[in-house]
Amino acid sequence: MSDFIIKPSVNNNKLFKIKKTIDENGNLINLPIIVEKPLTLYLNNQEIVTMMTINDYPEYLAIGYLYNQGMLENYSDIKKVEYHKDLKTIVVRTNSKTNYEAKLKKKINTSGCAQGTVFGDLISEIEDIKLNKKIKITHMQMMNLSKIINMEPSLYLKVGAIHGCVLCDVNKPMYYFEDVGRHNAVDKIAGLVIKNNINTSDKIFYTTGRLTSEMVIKCIKMKIPILISRSGFTAWAVEIAKKKKLTMIGRVRGKRFNILSGEFRLQYE
Amino acid sequence: MSDFIIKPSVNNNKLFKIKKTIDENGNLINLPIIVEKPLTLYLNNQEIVTMMTINDYPEYLAIGYLYNQGMLENYSDIKKVEYHKDLKTIVVRTNSKTNYEAKLKKKINTSGCAQGTVFGDLISEIEDIKLNKKIKITHMQMMNLSKIINMEPSLYLKVGAIHGCVLCDVNKPMYYFEDVGRHNAVDKIAGLVIKNNINTSDKIFYTTGRLTSEMVIKCIKMKIPILISRSGFTAWAVEIAKKKKLTMIGRVRGKRFNILSGEFRLQYE
Repeated sequence: MSDFIIKPSVNNNKLFKIKKTIDENGNLINLPIIVEKPLTLYLNNQEIVTMMTINDYPEYLAIGYLYNQGMLENYSDIKKVEYHKDLKTIVVRTNSKTNYEAKLKKKINTSGCAQGTVFGDLISEIEDIKLNKKIKITHMQMMNLSKIINMEPSLYLKVGAIHGCVLCDVNKPMYYFEDVGRHNAVDKIAGLVIKNNINTSDKIFYTTGRLTSEMVIKCIKMKIPILISRSGFTAWAVEIAKKKKLTMIGRVRGKRFNILSGEFRLQYE
Repeated sequence: MSDFIIKPSVNNNKLFKIKKTIDENGNLINLPIIVEKPLTLYLNNQEIVTMMTINDYPEYLAIGYLYNQGMLENYSDIKKVEYHKDLKTIVVRTNSKTNYEAKLKKKINTSGCAQGTVFGDLISEIEDIKLNKKIKITHMQMMNLSKIINMEPSLYLKVGAIHGCVLCDVNKPMYYFEDVGRHNAVDKIAGLVIKNNINTSDKIFYTTGRLTSEMVIKCIKMKIPILISRSGFTAWAVEIAKKKKLTMIGRVRGKRFNILSGEFRLQYE
């Protein structure tokens, strides 16, 4: 039934530690707990961010982060990615100076942290993106994807405190990433997509996390036309999804769901 | 039973919008959805960050963010807080140049986004903090707090997709803040605490969100000795909590829980 190309890293023992805890009856219990580690990302000689991550796919995470923040356009811009495990550092080197570095230089006098301005840029970056309108999904296909994903052994089922993102075909989930931060999980998908030049125009993006504006923007930036979550949503996320004709479906649990935007891609049986 | 000094903003109609959605049977449903808005924070003439927030307490959020990021030491450093609703901007003005601005100037050549370095600073900032060891909580008191909080009308119960943080006495929850980001909810608590000079050494911090390293660091920075969550936890969070002798209790649901650190403050009946 499960046919994932990338499965959750459940067999990577480095991703969790056994800790002694005490339960409500005063009994000592050995509990596996997820390990989060800092990973500092550099774009050439520019320190960008320190991410807290389970660190199973540092390269996908780094590339995806830069892509989703609009600091990197194409995979072909990259000359080299250097991961220094001991220094908890990853350096993405590009062939030429990136836009981002030029933009940043200009802004440095007024703005210490690029977060704010970069967010504004993100919205303008998705302005021209048109999502594939031909792809459809049936209610049955959606329930089936959700069921396979929920039954697949995952760090979520094993240790909890984690979010998952899955890139799916209409008929099957394909790439399943998890991380302590839901944005890291999305960024790993983005890294995978741009590194392997995966066609996303017929794909579905499934997330366990909430559908906030940033999540919707990242999905659109990756040109994925259908976004599904078992969790809730915010008003701005719905507004952006409607504007960009993204099919957004939330609170998918068992047979139940709410479709918030892009109804034309959903077929009821 | 409920005796909150600050209750969730359930009666603030500006915090949600009614959106037309379609359910699994194809029925049109009017659903209240939480509104997230960007709020750009300036420290004097320095743009710091744009936060996505429900924006019910912009001043507490701004002050708490600066405090938790180590950019502001005391409330008395603040000369004025200007909230410009139309510009979606809040400016915190200090009497003298803050440490942060000096630090930032020095770092600007090598580091575009302060996030990474600031995070490193946070850990060193809690180095000297000693949490109150005399305060105790009983299993019954903990269950009682959790029950009152879960039954209180909240945006979580009304619209979902939101996290809550509550500053409690041993015997009663007192200040209940919610936000789309769990860090915003914590930062509002911090803002409240430093603005009103609340003694936190006998308080309990309850959060609906996961106990990650950042959450633990913020709790310790606020000098609160007991941290409780209904959600899970990460290994690093447990390690920091143990080192700082913070009482950390996770997965509190009904009578069940896991105590991860600082068992000496918990009394079983």
